[in-house]
Amino acid sequence: MTIFPQITIIGMGLIGSSLARGILESKISNRLIVCDNNAEHCQLSRDLKLADDILDDPAKAVKGSDLVILATPVGTYGDLGQIICPEMKSGAILTDVGSVKGSVVKILSPLMRKDCHLIPGHPVAGTEQSGPRAGFAALFEGRWCILTPPLNAPAAMVSRLEKFWQALGSKVELMTPDHHDMVLAITSHLPHLIAYNIVGTARHLEEVTKSEVIKYSAGGFRDFTRIAASDPTMWRDVFLNNKDAVLEMLARFSEDLTALQRAIRYDEGDKLFELFDRTRRIRKEIIDAGQEEDIADFGRHKDEK
Amino acid sequence: MTIFPQITIIGMGLIGSSLARGILESKISNRLIVCDNNAEHCQLSRDLKLADDILDDPAKAVKGSDLVILATPVGTYGDLGQIICPEMKSGAILTDVGSVKGSVVKILSPLMRKDCHLIPGHPVAGTEQSGPRAGFAALFEGRWCILTPPLNAPAAMVSRLEKFWQALGSKVELMTPDHHDMVLAITSHLPHLIAYNIVGTARHLEEVTKSEVIKYSAGGFRDFTRIAASDPTMWRDVFLNNKDAVLEMLARFSEDLTALQRAIRYDEGDKLFELFDRTRRIRKEIIDAGQEEDIADFGRHKDEK
Repeated sequence: MTIFPQITIIGMGLIGSSLARGILESKISNRLIVCDNNAEHCQLSRDLKLADDILDDPAKAVKGSDLVILATPVGTYGDLGQIICPEMKSGAILTDVGSVKGSVVKILSPLMRKDCHLIPGHPVAGTEQSGPRAGFAALFEGRWCILTPPLNAPAAMVSRLEKFWQALGSKVELMTPDHHDMVLAITSHLPHLIAYNIVGTARHLEEVTKSEVIKYSAGGFRDFTRIAASDPTMWRDVFLNNKDAVLEMLARFSEDLTALQRAIRYDEGDKLFELFDRTRRIRKEIIDAGQEEDIADFGRHKDEK
Repeated sequence: MTIFPQITIIGMGLIGSSLARGILESKISNRLIVCDNNAEHCQLSRDLKLADDILDDPAKAVKGSDLVILATPVGTYGDLGQIICPEMKSGAILTDVGSVKGSVVKILSPLMRKDCHLIPGHPVAGTEQSGPRAGFAALFEGRWCILTPPLNAPAAMVSRLEKFWQALGSKVELMTPDHHDMVLAITSHLPHLIAYNIVGTARHLEEVTKSEVIKYSAGGFRDFTRIAASDPTMWRDVFLNNKDAVLEMLARFSEDLTALQRAIRYDEGDKLFELFDRTRRIRKEIIDAGQEEDIADFGRHKDEK
């Protein structure tokens, strides 16, 4: 079912290349153009036959497309917007897949032509891997995609973009950019920051050699290295572009951590137990909601034992 | 190959029941006795045929055994030691699987008879699940087991316990209890504390509903809930029994986090990128060391897509 006759994806990383695969598989469009400024990504995309046309010039890539999707780090949106906005087809939608939304609106809104529609988006899905090879069509299945349309966005356009994500298997939710940025600060940005930080702290230890950190990583550290292996450019841009919400969540996290530290120092076992018991339950709710599988993880999977 | 003619395991949680399965499969002993004060665990162990004999009285359970393994939360060791030490067979080894080692030596050493041998141990393996059903023999395969024998432990006894763990598929390393506690504070205890804390912080938020935290957990939060679903009693005891090392690592973590917070506040993108880029590499080393598989995790596995 064609939803957008022609689509352009700019950026062939994990998300861009997963989108390309999903669009080709589901026949959402008749023609798919992808664009990347990295020659290796372009060549890989050609080898993997991820699009009808593969270009390195975004101005050319967006021409005639009904939907243009930015799938590059948020820090590139300003320059890209200046290049592509004048070239976009009249009536086309410009969307994105960035992990922050308030900044995206601030950056792109002033560059938009009146006859085009900005509807920012964020598929809450991913793995720790990057590049055109890492993508796969099923990445979005059963995951939520958040859209943050401006108040003046035509309802028909928003609905068309909703259908696009639903065709890829996603569930769609609409919210304001500010609410998105606060929700994601706690469910995604802070977890990444904490993971990057603990891996960094481990690297600094002189008393514990690096080989010991690696050998005994099965005790829990291992799980944090997965998140801390995510794309550094993307994450730098996330933190620089969602500063207020991240700093706010970080302040709450640090307060709570100080309370926990105090409970350990003064042997307050009951306080520790109470927290550890409460947090256990939330896991079950995430599994029940289909956002995680209930398979014990021990660094490999049981069926491989 | 019989290594210990008779073995007793006290505590049939994840680790105890995994040990029972591994011992039965590998025929390390001729007779396996297990003991648990939880009637449900005893019944489950009977139903699952996890031992030759299943008792609820530790004094009786240790009689005649050549190896006694404590697999209960560390907070129970004092009481258990007083009950079992007088009943142990002369020449037997008392070991454990606790996640802390300094406290274990302090708690159990004064209770030991001169004709028995205390050799504390810690298999660095696990999942977030608990109880007799959660165990499986392959849990220890390819993982490290750390032994912290006292200086006066007979070499032949230490070597026999090493062979026991090797027969279960583990690699064995010897170190002092203090070094163990510091290494595990960073590779296991601090990661768990941070995970419990962030899940707790998320629960407190009024602006973000609980359903939103669950829906959008695929952004990273999900991974923390796995660790924060670990057994609360076990972890309370870990923190109370490795206070110094945990508080020390926590102080370093907090210093580093403050620096990161400052980098975000003052838009120091280069500092963020530099850290995020460095932490990425340690992941590869963990995979190369066989402590994690190189399969992208997105809440389910690719072969299930």
